[in-house]
Amino acid sequence: MIRINEGYLSLTPAFFFTKIGEEIAAFEKRHPGKRLLHLGVGDVTKPLAPVVIEAMHRAVSEQGDAASFHGYLPETGTDFLKEAIVAYYARRNVTLSMDEVFISSGAADDLGAILHLFSPENRVLLIEPAYPAYADANQMDGRKLIRLPGTPENGFLPLPSPDLQTELVYLCSPNNPTGAAYTRGQLQQWVDWAKARQALILFDAAYEAFIADADVPHSILELPGAETCAIEISSLSKTAGFTGMRLGYTVVPKDLRVNGVSLNDLWRRDRCTRTNGVSYIMQRAGEAALSEEGQRQNRVNIDCYRENGRILSDALRSEGLWFTGGRNAPYLWLMCPDGMSGWAFFSRLLEQAQIVGTPGEGFGPSGAGYLRLSCFASRGDTEEGARRLMKAL
Amino acid sequence: MIRINEGYLSLTPAFFFTKIGEEIAAFEKRHPGKRLLHLGVGDVTKPLAPVVIEAMHRAVSEQGDAASFHGYLPETGTDFLKEAIVAYYARRNVTLSMDEVFISSGAADDLGAILHLFSPENRVLLIEPAYPAYADANQMDGRKLIRLPGTPENGFLPLPSPDLQTELVYLCSPNNPTGAAYTRGQLQQWVDWAKARQALILFDAAYEAFIADADVPHSILELPGAETCAIEISSLSKTAGFTGMRLGYTVVPKDLRVNGVSLNDLWRRDRCTRTNGVSYIMQRAGEAALSEEGQRQNRVNIDCYRENGRILSDALRSEGLWFTGGRNAPYLWLMCPDGMSGWAFFSRLLEQAQIVGTPGEGFGPSGAGYLRLSCFASRGDTEEGARRLMKAL
Repeated sequence: MIRINEGYLSLTPAFFFTKIGEEIAAFEKRHPGKRLLHLGVGDVTKPLAPVVIEAMHRAVSEQGDAASFHGYLPETGTDFLKEAIVAYYARRNVTLSMDEVFISSGAADDLGAILHLFSPENRVLLIEPAYPAYADANQMDGRKLIRLPGTPENGFLPLPSPDLQTELVYLCSPNNPTGAAYTRGQLQQWVDWAKARQALILFDAAYEAFIADADVPHSILELPGAETCAIEISSLSKTAGFTGMRLGYTVVPKDLRVNGVSLNDLWRRDRCTRTNGVSYIMQRAGEAALSEEGQRQNRVNIDCYRENGRILSDALRSEGLWFTGGRNAPYLWLMCPDGMSGWAFFSRLLEQAQIVGTPGEGFGPSGAGYLRLSCFASRGDTEEGARRLMKAL
Repeated sequence: MIRINEGYLSLTPAFFFTKIGEEIAAFEKRHPGKRLLHLGVGDVTKPLAPVVIEAMHRAVSEQGDAASFHGYLPETGTDFLKEAIVAYYARRNVTLSMDEVFISSGAADDLGAILHLFSPENRVLLIEPAYPAYADANQMDGRKLIRLPGTPENGFLPLPSPDLQTELVYLCSPNNPTGAAYTRGQLQQWVDWAKARQALILFDAAYEAFIADADVPHSILELPGAETCAIEISSLSKTAGFTGMRLGYTVVPKDLRVNGVSLNDLWRRDRCTRTNGVSYIMQRAGEAALSEEGQRQNRVNIDCYRENGRILSDALRSEGLWFTGGRNAPYLWLMCPDGMSGWAFFSRLLEQAQIVGTPGEGFGPSGAGYLRLSCFASRGDTEEGARRLMKAL
């Protein structure tokens, strides 16, 4: 008799974002023709940078000609894209070797897949609220979850204490969903704690391109000692608007060892066995996005999203609502008024103002009573959303 | 203390194809300038069909314009590509619903990822020789492997017997590496056995586009009863030359239940949690490849590879070597002469004829003493390879 992985049976039937999509579809069915302002989902809206489009047209043409055609590529990624990533890190004074970089189909994929390397007996610490796939992927595997709650008191940036017991910890800074970002000093505390505890940090750096403050690190690998206790998982989804492209990268330092076993060797073995890598065309797109010109062009988009963050921040401030984020990340995390739950406030904004936010409950127990807003809508929708928000409050 | 997944520690350090790559690199270092004929690896060499190239140029341009830009897509794939796959199956009189189709980054990815759904206690039957990732991915998860050997006596198409005990079984037909393909009657025996045993077939259909014989099914879902005991995992890598594109699909029938649990629901939950899907541009490429015109254009390439199979078959026959394949699949599987091991014959062909084959030992114990040849080289290289092969024998 086949035995199902019991971790799956313990999950809610639908993934959180699937559930949100169903709520929106139900509203639209009840109110046909009403235009919704999507200020919740973390999806970009600006088109890809011209230099990326040009690179992809070239790569597509190469695939149509036998002389330049590419079949299977190295499972862990092409040298040209790894070189671009090594150069991208070098600008932050992080020195990587090519074989520490693994190209992926996006951070979402590797944040779950990296767990293959670790036995289900390991405990996993989540700094909550957190991207729900961290919890779900580990629940699928049967790992014990420990939750360290963010609160207004700690600015949704909890710090480690010596008594904190875990083997694995997910850190996401700048944070999804709260938009809060650890300073260098705060993140160093996590690195020092992990080294002392022999714990491993799975660092989600997907939002690093939005960092505005000089004392917020873009990579955990900027911090001394991180190369012995951290894997960095990142993405071009937000850096270069690649949400519909599916391209990311994972850095597994060669110095990272568990009981003498190199995690870099293990992850290479995993990737070579379980995947045939990422499309040639996407990898050329990534190379272009990380070029000097690509970064300059993407910066224009990011500045525009950042201005949306300022508009929404001003609106929340003017209404006296408590919130974090909106400065080093494309998210704002607000405390719902009148002690409402996130779901109740989500429904109120949807019904009264046709604004779609994201209820905090989806990001774990400590998200209850909060709502996430994002900065990715058009300028017009963001301004209109800010007006409607103020009117509804 | 972090605990490594012990399954990884029990594996050979390098994946089989990584090892082959290292052997070739070492030869090239010893003999700089000697041109090798690559008749081993299963990688295509012909450029993508014009209709696919045109579709990708259009899709790239869409991504450069805000009005047509696509961000996140449904995790399980776009409707337009699912529709194309449903239509592709309809031509074989297999009726699928859209939500039975899951778009993937290729069969290689899903052949391992689908295992998430099943507890490590399940036993896994491998029809050997087999694509080495089947064994490795299950060894990583700690599942017990049972090996059913292919032999010249059963034509490398072993059939089930009532005493065969397992919960999961991988079937690949047309087969990699042997090129042998089950007839409808033979495959029906597997379906009937799985239904009686309540076992699940993981059917790898990656080579279906090469089928020449009318009594060889292209999909296991052509057979009555398969929708209650089989998941089909397929790819456009060989169907449309997409090895460097990374696009495939997995069909999980809605009628497939284990103890009342729908595997379709479970796989949807897995995909929505663990991935953000596949690039818009690749999905448009897949739609074009599966269009009538795309299939017509790809057929020209496949016919060309098939002719390579005929050339290699004739050479092997003229030398009196026993082999299977070369007709319904792009592989030939030959018994090494003089009782040589696959590795010894691999080395001999490399040194004496500068031909790169693939040693059978990489496909499991029952591959010992065999060599795989593939039909994907250019016509010129294949003809030259056939000549050198005859000379070396």
